[in-house]
Amino acid sequence: MANPLTPDVLVDPVVLTRALVDVPSVSRAEKAIADWVTEVLAQQPHLRVDRLGNTVMARTDQGRARRVVLAGHLDTVPVHDNLPSTVVDDLIYGCGSADMKSGVALALHLATTLPDPAHDVTYLFYEAEEIESRYNGLGLVAEQHPEWLRADFAVLLEPTYGVVEAGCQGTMQATVRTSGRRAHTARAWRGVNAIHAAGAVLRRLEDYRPRTVTIDGCTYREGLNAVGVAGGVAGNVVPDECTVQVNLRFAPDRDEKQAAEHLREVFDGFGVEVTDSAAGALPGLTAPPAREFLAVVGAEPVAKLGWTDVARFAALGIPALNYGPGDPLLAHAPEEHVEIGKIRDGAATLHRWLAA
Amino acid sequence: MANPLTPDVLVDPVVLTRALVDVPSVSRAEKAIADWVTEVLAQQPHLRVDRLGNTVMARTDQGRARRVVLAGHLDTVPVHDNLPSTVVDDLIYGCGSADMKSGVALALHLATTLPDPAHDVTYLFYEAEEIESRYNGLGLVAEQHPEWLRADFAVLLEPTYGVVEAGCQGTMQATVRTSGRRAHTARAWRGVNAIHAAGAVLRRLEDYRPRTVTIDGCTYREGLNAVGVAGGVAGNVVPDECTVQVNLRFAPDRDEKQAAEHLREVFDGFGVEVTDSAAGALPGLTAPPAREFLAVVGAEPVAKLGWTDVARFAALGIPALNYGPGDPLLAHAPEEHVEIGKIRDGAATLHRWLAA
Repeated sequence: MANPLTPDVLVDPVVLTRALVDVPSVSRAEKAIADWVTEVLAQQPHLRVDRLGNTVMARTDQGRARRVVLAGHLDTVPVHDNLPSTVVDDLIYGCGSADMKSGVALALHLATTLPDPAHDVTYLFYEAEEIESRYNGLGLVAEQHPEWLRADFAVLLEPTYGVVEAGCQGTMQATVRTSGRRAHTARAWRGVNAIHAAGAVLRRLEDYRPRTVTIDGCTYREGLNAVGVAGGVAGNVVPDECTVQVNLRFAPDRDEKQAAEHLREVFDGFGVEVTDSAAGALPGLTAPPAREFLAVVGAEPVAKLGWTDVARFAALGIPALNYGPGDPLLAHAPEEHVEIGKIRDGAATLHRWLAA
Repeated sequence: MANPLTPDVLVDPVVLTRALVDVPSVSRAEKAIADWVTEVLAQQPHLRVDRLGNTVMARTDQGRARRVVLAGHLDTVPVHDNLPSTVVDDLIYGCGSADMKSGVALALHLATTLPDPAHDVTYLFYEAEEIESRYNGLGLVAEQHPEWLRADFAVLLEPTYGVVEAGCQGTMQATVRTSGRRAHTARAWRGVNAIHAAGAVLRRLEDYRPRTVTIDGCTYREGLNAVGVAGGVAGNVVPDECTVQVNLRFAPDRDEKQAAEHLREVFDGFGVEVTDSAAGALPGLTAPPAREFLAVVGAEPVAKLGWTDVARFAALGIPALNYGPGDPLLAHAPEEHVEIGKIRDGAATLHRWLAA
């Protein structure tokens, strides 16, 4: 099959969005799309291209005072019977249309049509964002080629519906455990029921009042939720253990250590084990390149509530924002779609910024 | 291998207990023991023997005014590295020693040594009591040969440590379900957390005060326990469903319908689905053959709290009691054992009753 990313396609970010959506690229199956993206980038004389797995890096080297990153992931969640793409009025439907091939299209369009940008640009098209963190292409680059990420500012083209979503909240998974003593249910008074004891854990979750935190004008709403519960030995046994899995979403004014301490306070008296966590990212809106970008967008930024890869840039000391045409509420939904107008607006905004 | 149940062995219920323990007979592997039991019973001119699977029935037909059943299951729970048997002082250790080969030994000893009992006796040695109800030998007999069970009174030789345990409690499994609305945990306020909602279910279980019911002088302690809890979609999803499995042990003054109504009252406002149940059995101590048996035992009866196969007799209108030498608290334990003194006492009591 011939590369569908022809010059005719690359020149129009809307047509390019459809073409990218129509190349299936579920996580761990990004080779075809990465090969085609590599091929068209390698044809651009103004770009230096490199690759790590199915992650593609392309950069200008014009000696500008500043370097910025435009980054987008190539993978999608599993297809929900929603490929190939369809167009209904102003909407392109299809797996990945919002999250985030419309964002990838903006970056690939600029990479192939703007040979002389106002800032040097590093374009990153990366693999495996939708699955376990250890596969994440941006994470692998940070480990193996941190020099690819060196920049003054980064824009992650995650779906934000055309507004700037700044920073991101941290996320922490923990197990809260209750214990008891087994007994036959016919003589239950000889035992202590660990599932009944978990009632007190759930009560604390019900009574929990999450914080709302405003930083650089962005308001973060925290949350603490049970995301799993398990217990039980057999139908005739008073159970001696029950576990409640909780997920804390924490504003970026707390670090991971503070978040873990907070969980231990909330569940004081119970065993709490943190099983996974990822730090948030401060909005970083005071950095000059961020202010310049915000001025071009011309709308107030809001807080990013979900965890995104901006935190990986923040961890490297690089201010980073989320900005993309898709609607984040449609991400991963079978009816996922993107508005053509939002793609055109996004392309115009990024062009205004980088062609300046 | 020769049949270990020789006349020398059958004549002594203690020696016979050891011999029976030393024939492994985990549920669904009772053929060897059933074959040997069949063989020795078939040699007795005073018995008519029949068989269904690995369940063996033998009966006297002396034209007595009353017929009684002595019943015991041949199977055991899985061996816990506790075979062959060992003897330490007055204790016989080994899988099935208490539950219930010492009881089976009493019945087999009487069947082969008492040719002319005071009541006609139906001996039942049955398979698969320790596993799912559909395999239960007594249940299969009730379905396929109900005439084998026709009697005025039944003694089930389950472990009771030498006291009469009367009737049994019913048992009911039910699922209590809470529901909610899924959402991403980064925007938890858009969802409704079904696991948090299960806190109220667990609270009702914690606050539950079980009844104590006295019938015919036997005191039944009811119980209601969570025996399982499950919920959760993924680590970043507010879950929309949670289920709590509960087990109700109910005194035999309630029938299954009343028990189900009781559960619906306790969990009013939540979905309750009964998934399994077994009726209890009234103690039936006022029936003349039961009173006669109690007089021979000479000790006050107590309530049986666990569910046993006496309920199958009760369902057929036959008064039935539990009476056996083993300690019910040792059933299914790796250190399972039986006191030799209790075997001798039990044999003497049954002999006094049936030789009268």
